[in-house]
Amino acid sequence: MQSSIYTDLAMEARELHPELQGVVEQSEESEGIRISRIEVKTEEASQKLEKPRGRYVTLDAPELTNRPLDLFEQVAAQLGEEIALLLGSLASDATVLIVGLGNRAITSDSLGPKTVEQVYVTRHVTQYLPEAFPHPVRSVCAIAPGVLGVTGIETMEVVRGVVERVRPDVILAVDALASRRAARISTTLQLTDTGINPGSGVGNTRKSLNQATFGVPVVAIGVPMVVYASTISQDTISLIADETGLHHDEETLKRLAEKVITENLGNMIVTPKDVDQIIADMSRIIADAINFALFDADYDEVRMLIS
Amino acid sequence: MQSSIYTDLAMEARELHPELQGVVEQSEESEGIRISRIEVKTEEASQKLEKPRGRYVTLDAPELTNRPLDLFEQVAAQLGEEIALLLGSLASDATVLIVGLGNRAITSDSLGPKTVEQVYVTRHVTQYLPEAFPHPVRSVCAIAPGVLGVTGIETMEVVRGVVERVRPDVILAVDALASRRAARISTTLQLTDTGINPGSGVGNTRKSLNQATFGVPVVAIGVPMVVYASTISQDTISLIADETGLHHDEETLKRLAEKVITENLGNMIVTPKDVDQIIADMSRIIADAINFALFDADYDEVRMLIS
Amino acid sequence: MQSSIYTDLAMEARELHPELQGVVEQSEESEGIRISRIEVKTEEASQKLEKPRGRYVTLDAPELTNRPLDLFEQVAAQLGEEIALLLGSLASDATVLIVGLGNRAITSDSLGPKTVEQVYVTRHVTQYLPEAFPHPVRSVCAIAPGVLGVTGIETMEVVRGVVERVRPDVILAVDALASRRAARISTTLQLTDTGINPGSGVGNTRKSLNQATFGVPVVAIGVPMVVYASTISQDTISLIADETGLHHDEETLKRLAEKVITENLGNMIVTPKDVDQIIADMSRIIADAINFALFDADYDEVRMLIS
Amino acid sequence: MQSSIYTDLAMEARELHPELQGVVEQSEESEGIRISRIEVKTEEASQKLEKPRGRYVTLDAPELTNRPLDLFEQVAAQLGEEIALLLGSLASDATVLIVGLGNRAITSDSLGPKTVEQVYVTRHVTQYLPEAFPHPVRSVCAIAPGVLGVTGIETMEVVRGVVERVRPDVILAVDALASRRAARISTTLQLTDTGINPGSGVGNTRKSLNQATFGVPVVAIGVPMVVYASTISQDTISLIADETGLHHDEETLKRLAEKVITENLGNMIVTPKDVDQIIADMSRIIADAINFALFDADYDEVRMLIS
Repeated sequence: MQSSIYTDLAMEARELHPELQGVVEQSEESEGIRISRIEVKTEEASQKLEKPRGRYVTLDAPELTNRPLDLFEQVAAQLGEEIALLLGSLASDATVLIVGLGNRAITSDSLGPKTVEQVYVTRHVTQYLPEAFPHPVRSVCAIAPGVLGVTGIETMEVVRGVVERVRPDVILAVDALASRRAARISTTLQLTDTGINPGSGVGNTRKSLNQATFGVPVVAIGVPMVVYASTISQDTISLIADETGLHHDEETLKRLAEKVITENLGNMIVTPKDVDQIIADMSRIIADAINFALFDADYDEVRMLIS
Repeated sequence: MQSSIYTDLAMEARELHPELQGVVEQSEESEGIRISRIEVKTEEASQKLEKPRGRYVTLDAPELTNRPLDLFEQVAAQLGEEIALLLGSLASDATVLIVGLGNRAITSDSLGPKTVEQVYVTRHVTQYLPEAFPHPVRSVCAIAPGVLGVTGIETMEVVRGVVERVRPDVILAVDALASRRAARISTTLQLTDTGINPGSGVGNTRKSLNQATFGVPVVAIGVPMVVYASTISQDTISLIADETGLHHDEETLKRLAEKVITENLGNMIVTPKDVDQIIADMSRIIADAINFALFDADYDEVRMLIS
Repeated sequence: MQSSIYTDLAMEARELHPELQGVVEQSEESEGIRISRIEVKTEEASQKLEKPRGRYVTLDAPELTNRPLDLFEQVAAQLGEEIALLLGSLASDATVLIVGLGNRAITSDSLGPKTVEQVYVTRHVTQYLPEAFPHPVRSVCAIAPGVLGVTGIETMEVVRGVVERVRPDVILAVDALASRRAARISTTLQLTDTGINPGSGVGNTRKSLNQATFGVPVVAIGVPMVVYASTISQDTISLIADETGLHHDEETLKRLAEKVITENLGNMIVTPKDVDQIIADMSRIIADAINFALFDADYDEVRMLIS
Repeated sequence: MQSSIYTDLAMEARELHPELQGVVEQSEESEGIRISRIEVKTEEASQKLEKPRGRYVTLDAPELTNRPLDLFEQVAAQLGEEIALLLGSLASDATVLIVGLGNRAITSDSLGPKTVEQVYVTRHVTQYLPEAFPHPVRSVCAIAPGVLGVTGIETMEVVRGVVERVRPDVILAVDALASRRAARISTTLQLTDTGINPGSGVGNTRKSLNQATFGVPVVAIGVPMVVYASTISQDTISLIADETGLHHDEETLKRLAEKVITENLGNMIVTPKDVDQIIADMSRIIADAINFALFDADYDEVRMLIS
């Protein structure tokens, strides 16, 4: 029954297909952070996992739920290193566009807009006052394009308009994700060089933000903020099926799941009560990581001038 | 299995025990609003429903999810009338304390604090500048006492400190509730003369805000804002039990439910994505209703002077 | 000395040059709202007033400071009519882009972003689900492009990117203004068909949002939210000069004014303490007015479907 | 003319009376922070300065306007040390009540409420779960009592109610201040063992929060957030008087100042445009300083458990 369950995390998709060929994976752990690297290498694996071919890095730090300051800093530093790795060799004066996706008026969807508020923006300085920096720094700009239901404009139309003017060398996109497990909310971050690919990750170029559609590398950073309530019902039923041997009656169980979902859940999401705090913490971590990755040695200098 | 399922709504508790003696109920409907009146009359019924003896009025307006302006106004007007009915004969210069319960930093728990921000407060005028009103008006004051985890002080300790100074003739308390059904979020309001009685409504006087503990009538107004995620799993399992005839194996199902909940849900809540908007709408409706109920004929005059 | 004093209000510029030729003005008053209509007709008048040629409508309602609900509604209705007048004959299925200028993170500058959050957006419906409306309605979209210091991108670059994609028939821009008089904050609204023209209104096409630069009519709506602190010092000194006959020593006074401003004021603004409330009220009034003006007879239908 | 100019800062009051007897002062400077210590020792000095007898410590760090991270941390650490000094010997298990004064709905007045949101609160743990800490820690609780215009209840009535229940050994109060110089906003912090004494600091026990009225030591921490607009006019006029030798006509100047203020300024305040950011930064600094001062060696342990 799991085929109908959606997840934005490559790691979770992999867990559902642990034996699948065409996937290279590797993981390590240090100081409370587990890093998993998955590469989806074949088209077949991509179809099965519903994730485009490319690299996915997941940082997992369960202790983040206790909000220790040290770990916040370690995760930001580690994430910054991973972003730098995925960006590869980027010119010291490259132009970078940061895109904060999502709806700022809905707390659980506001990770992107909240993050772009906190990144160091330099493009106006590099363009109008370049002598303010002693040597070239990255030219960083940032937008939160809003969502279709609020602006009446496809998110990617807004992004495209900006890209045509700014002509970035690379795009960094930040978005809230959906997970299958509530425990991943606030403890997991995913980084990928495949960009943003809503739904199955196949087709739908209108809503995609990736190298194929925008012509420049797109690195996407996301954090699971919700579990769809329907996932919970489906998980419950799967578990009952597994443990009670009711597999022969899968149709009945599916019908029951639909009934619960329709009657009780509608458009509900499962989220921690303190989602406001988690958004504040996670957007801070991601913005720090981006600032580290993009300014590196110039970090202090930029901070002083910009913020 | 339903005995372990918690609800703050007397109406939902009644639905689980439709045949119970000692409960008087009556309902009516007009212009898209269904009003149910339940009176819990005996101690036995109170124990079974886990609700104190007293009157419970529920307003249900499913169309509120579409946010029609007219209905907002009708619900506010109707709720105002019901509040006035529960308050009974209150002196034209009575002192009223409005208590907004909950944690303003957690969106789904901020209904109380958000409501008290919008009620018309007159006590400082009636006390220091009574001649500002041509004739006596209710002396209204309002506090949001915060929650134990944020202040380090029991909510009711703070309320008691204020009550001893203000000496109100009646207390109106506003709080977010937990429901068993997600569909009730944003469409249902409950009003009761039993006050606030956390948990079972039995004992725990330390956390109660009712006539027995504070010596004055306490009318409580609440709106379901969350469904506990565990409720969803339990509902799914109950449904499966009912439909598949697995009742003989209730213990297995309970164990399975616990497993899903522990692994996947932890302290999660089920809430609509647009909870920020719902809190804004519902706090507006309740504040309007309270303003209508308390100032009535003086409404325009007070609004002009106060806001 | 007044030549160095800046105001965004044509009405205030006019007051400083009451005898100037090339200006047609007319005013009326009803139910507490004073409407002034100024048309700047000649290039010479435009230069002197530092305002582009075109029409300026000012609504003035001093009683708004008392926040009477009725007046809010009357001002919104009146403003809606004036917007419709300036828009002229606009096709029933015209595309309208609403641009909320300003920095949402600075309360006194957030009028534009706050307004666009409240307008009815229909373009996604007219484009993807036109049958949802029984007959054609205006196709409205809305963006808050941010400010250069936050995004690193010129505001008008972002707007231009969107305009090229959306191809609107008309643009409505909303922005906070600077006034010379604090009393105008929260009580005055200005409407103009000359668009947005920062500074003198002459040149600086890079920052302008008007018909000349964007090729479609641009109607701008603004409310004074701040008085520059320097204005206060200058006013004080002007008054002293006028009343004490110190005109012969204008240079000394100018030097003194500069000293006060440099030492004490820096980049300060003068604003009412309750600017948060005023922004909430004024953005509500403007959004209502825009919704009335653009949807008119379809208003209820659109509201029901959209919000 | 300066006698009518109000300031909350003892340092500014002292500057207006530099020769006054009965005041002991001393200052030092290190790493960009200037610390001034003033002690008002005699009743006569207290009357003249309109400040109660007691100790006032001012931290001044002009570079804070550039928001360097390092300096934020240094100021927080330094302020923490000064708080500890003023608190003197406080038992390791003392009960401390933190009071955040001001109106959270008005940005420039929200320093107190924003600070209490960020202090570490332990009283509920020390009371209900003392074994959570390996050895005794301070029992800290915190409230934001609101303001009279919003609650209808005198701020100090609410505080008194809480004090009677909590029985603190010491009270820490945080409030936004008014300064005479805009440059002090966001760069100056004042600490005093005289508590909160609105207006002249003489009489008005109803609104005071000090040892005399509450029976326990009260340490107050404040940051200038506004300059009253009237101060600007008065300063301008004083300067003109000084420089032009118009002293003989002080009455005329006073009349003129009043005219400017009445006509143009009303109830306006002078504030930086980025007051939202300044409140966020300053409340963070003060909360950090309080956390350092109260938990000291237990800091990490408390942080881990509490936040």
